[in-house]
Amino acid sequence: MKFSLRQIASILHAEIEGDPNLEIHTFASIEEGFPGAITFLGNEKYTPFIYQTRASAVIVDKDFLPNGKIQATLLKVDDPYTAVALLLEQVNKLKVSQKVGIEEPSQIHSSVRMGQNVFIGSFAYLDKDIVIGDEVKIYPNVYIGEGSEIGDNTIIFPNVTIYHGTKIGNNCIIHAGSCIGSDGFGFAPQEDGSFKKIPQTGTVVLEDGVELGANTCIDRATFGQTIIRQGAKLDNLVQLAHNVEIGKNTVIAAQTGIAGSTKLGANCMVGGQVGIVGHLEIADRSMIDAQSGVNKSIKESGKAFRGSPIQPHRQQLKSELLFRKLEEMYNKIRDLEDQIQNLGS
Amino acid sequence: MKFSLRQIASILHAEIEGDPNLEIHTFASIEEGFPGAITFLGNEKYTPFIYQTRASAVIVDKDFLPNGKIQATLLKVDDPYTAVALLLEQVNKLKVSQKVGIEEPSQIHSSVRMGQNVFIGSFAYLDKDIVIGDEVKIYPNVYIGEGSEIGDNTIIFPNVTIYHGTKIGNNCIIHAGSCIGSDGFGFAPQEDGSFKKIPQTGTVVLEDGVELGANTCIDRATFGQTIIRQGAKLDNLVQLAHNVEIGKNTVIAAQTGIAGSTKLGANCMVGGQVGIVGHLEIADRSMIDAQSGVNKSIKESGKAFRGSPIQPHRQQLKSELLFRKLEEMYNKIRDLEDQIQNLGS
Amino acid sequence: MKFSLRQIASILHAEIEGDPNLEIHTFASIEEGFPGAITFLGNEKYTPFIYQTRASAVIVDKDFLPNGKIQATLLKVDDPYTAVALLLEQVNKLKVSQKVGIEEPSQIHSSVRMGQNVFIGSFAYLDKDIVIGDEVKIYPNVYIGEGSEIGDNTIIFPNVTIYHGTKIGNNCIIHAGSCIGSDGFGFAPQEDGSFKKIPQTGTVVLEDGVELGANTCIDRATFGQTIIRQGAKLDNLVQLAHNVEIGKNTVIAAQTGIAGSTKLGANCMVGGQVGIVGHLEIADRSMIDAQSGVNKSIKESGKAFRGSPIQPHRQQLKSELLFRKLEEMYNKIRDLEDQIQNLGS
Repeated sequence: MKFSLRQIASILHAEIEGDPNLEIHTFASIEEGFPGAITFLGNEKYTPFIYQTRASAVIVDKDFLPNGKIQATLLKVDDPYTAVALLLEQVNKLKVSQKVGIEEPSQIHSSVRMGQNVFIGSFAYLDKDIVIGDEVKIYPNVYIGEGSEIGDNTIIFPNVTIYHGTKIGNNCIIHAGSCIGSDGFGFAPQEDGSFKKIPQTGTVVLEDGVELGANTCIDRATFGQTIIRQGAKLDNLVQLAHNVEIGKNTVIAAQTGIAGSTKLGANCMVGGQVGIVGHLEIADRSMIDAQSGVNKSIKESGKAFRGSPIQPHRQQLKSELLFRKLEEMYNKIRDLEDQIQNLGS
Repeated sequence: MKFSLRQIASILHAEIEGDPNLEIHTFASIEEGFPGAITFLGNEKYTPFIYQTRASAVIVDKDFLPNGKIQATLLKVDDPYTAVALLLEQVNKLKVSQKVGIEEPSQIHSSVRMGQNVFIGSFAYLDKDIVIGDEVKIYPNVYIGEGSEIGDNTIIFPNVTIYHGTKIGNNCIIHAGSCIGSDGFGFAPQEDGSFKKIPQTGTVVLEDGVELGANTCIDRATFGQTIIRQGAKLDNLVQLAHNVEIGKNTVIAAQTGIAGSTKLGANCMVGGQVGIVGHLEIADRSMIDAQSGVNKSIKESGKAFRGSPIQPHRQQLKSELLFRKLEEMYNKIRDLEDQIQNLGS
Repeated sequence: MKFSLRQIASILHAEIEGDPNLEIHTFASIEEGFPGAITFLGNEKYTPFIYQTRASAVIVDKDFLPNGKIQATLLKVDDPYTAVALLLEQVNKLKVSQKVGIEEPSQIHSSVRMGQNVFIGSFAYLDKDIVIGDEVKIYPNVYIGEGSEIGDNTIIFPNVTIYHGTKIGNNCIIHAGSCIGSDGFGFAPQEDGSFKKIPQTGTVVLEDGVELGANTCIDRATFGQTIIRQGAKLDNLVQLAHNVEIGKNTVIAAQTGIAGSTKLGANCMVGGQVGIVGHLEIADRSMIDAQSGVNKSIKESGKAFRGSPIQPHRQQLKSELLFRKLEEMYNKIRDLEDQIQNLGS
């Protein structure tokens, strides 16, 4: 990669403050910047580094007001994160080969309906009655069960397992090792203490623009559907049980688990390692901090929660603060008891 | 699928209350029922829906007493969950193709002993001295290491890795992406701060009727065996360390982790995201709530625990309640101090 | 396996106390020992078993002083754990076949540079411009993306996915199902509530001697590198987000997750199911108990922490103790209020 800052500014519709002729070879983080690198300021925690960075250029918010001398050329944009995303897209296109075609050996049932410009890697297995859209990329060692559908432009990375009857929309990304459509965890207890498996006959639906991280697990519904709605993003090692529903544009960080039949609304933000018990409804735009345990439905939208079990965010922070003062509280109670003892005598 | 309610009642040994001639095409949840669908009432939380459901039929406990008008035909059975399991089994048989035979290319060592009516998918790899029972299904992209044994009727879904020397019983189900027999996490600290690997030379044994969820990990023993006893069920993304033992019919929900050499008794119920430290013994029929941290052995059987670290269930609920009242308690202590100050003066 | 104790003592540089002519056939744990087995005493919790074990021999610390009669022959060594590691290495060499060569069908791009004595299993996929060192073992169904490098003696177990541009050092072990180099979880929020993917253009570097457990996920950097330094050991189902750095010889137990850009120092010990938020720095030799939540940087090295959010270890234990006494504290406050009420009247 080799761009002038003028070229980059043109791609990003950015205003240049400084030398537009500098050449950029690579990206760097703001604290590790060096000549020839472009970086960005997206998180105000990193603002002090802008006065020290040796990067040639920094992408900043158009409202950024420096309170010191900055060596780097500034590129002022409406939204630094989106600008970086745009720029990295250009870079990525140069970096990774774009594959098309069907590699051998692969196992593709004669009934599979294949779109245009598809890539199917070696050792991929496509069972019968599958429909594959245009520009789909299916990497090596992927398994797709019968009757599944994969929409246009979707990318499925290696070693993913997609069980039968799964529907995946357009523009989805499924990272390596994820499992979609495995059986929900349902067993009927028997009198002798053993369990009889409840067959899981439903399916999984991923709407358009969904991204799943690596080694994430989405169970099929007992009957009906487990659904992830449009634009939702799930990180690595996330667990969705049978009949869960994830709302549009909801984002779930790594290692979170959601138990059966719980429905999350749209635009929720769920931190990592959160647990949500089954059969709940979580309102739109709920924010759940990492490691929280959600044990009841959230009815009002746009609220923040924290703790296990959850409390409203601010209240939980107070409880946590006083948890750290429990010894002080305990000692005060003892002192009070002594004082009252003395007063009474 | 298309059954009359009379046919279904006959399969389930159910008593019909209502029209036995209705035709059933599909399953639905009770809150989403529609004409032509059959549903069930298994969790009393859903009882209100039985008076509203548009489903044609509802499977209910034979002791269910309605306290309102129900449109749907009722099928009364001893145990609704088991009835649903039976019915879904029939449905599943119609839905998924039953494969038999060995697909090519697959890699099967000449020394493998293969039972009757086995399915081996493409890109499966069976190393030497493996024994495969009758009616076993091994899906594509599965790896099985040398000397392993797979019992009759066991199903191994795609992308599973079974390391050498693993013994899996009859009627087991291993979901996609699970790893059985990876090295236990054992290292001897050295004087220079580095770690020397302790080779893990033991094995893993799964007795009959065990089910493992997707992307679950079972480490091999350092020496001896990691054992999952008959009928135990593990959900997705569960971690069992070396030399763990899981008792008969014990059920473990998703993302739970159990450290080395801990032994769980029979018929335990372990929630999701639980952590259990190493070298403990957990009595039969223990119940551990989700997200708990178990840091000591449980000696009395049939008790319920919760919290991190665990307390008896009821006591933990009280602590949790008062945790949410810590600010109130703190303020009361301050008030008391003020009052005593005033009394003393 | 069949060794005399004299042979074993010679391998371990051990001092024999008892009969050196006993024959050893196998390993066993100290509580399950039997004649013909050798065991060891590494954890003082197990000391009582040394007086009961039926094992023929026990490896003990040279400073071990028995306070009762021991039947078994003792092998006294500097460090029992390291001695066991050495001995198990001998055993393992006899147990598992050592494979060399390239199995077919596998997919190896013509540009791959292959070292000496390499094993490549069937259905492995090596994309272009990959460099494979000497004595490397790549098991079946592994995928390695273009431009990756694998150092000498490294072992990659089945169903592992290594994305493009990953660098793995010498003497590493990657257990089955792990994913290295999947996209970091980065999205730029848009005004309509949707998210724009921030392409992840960086890489992952594993230095020499790193071990990753099964189904562990290491995300590639947004730009720059996600790094695991020399000798670090990660257990199963661990999650490292983009741009994380793990210091030399740091050990991380199963199901722990570390958010973006956090840097752990050298020789840290991190328990299972720990969560560490992003953009932190954790000092060398920090010790973090299982299930902790780390929400701030740790500046002083060698300290122990516990809890979510963390406190210094000892202080957290006090808080936990008093958490279990909250009901008692609450009742005392109420009593004090009553007594003051009475005093005042």
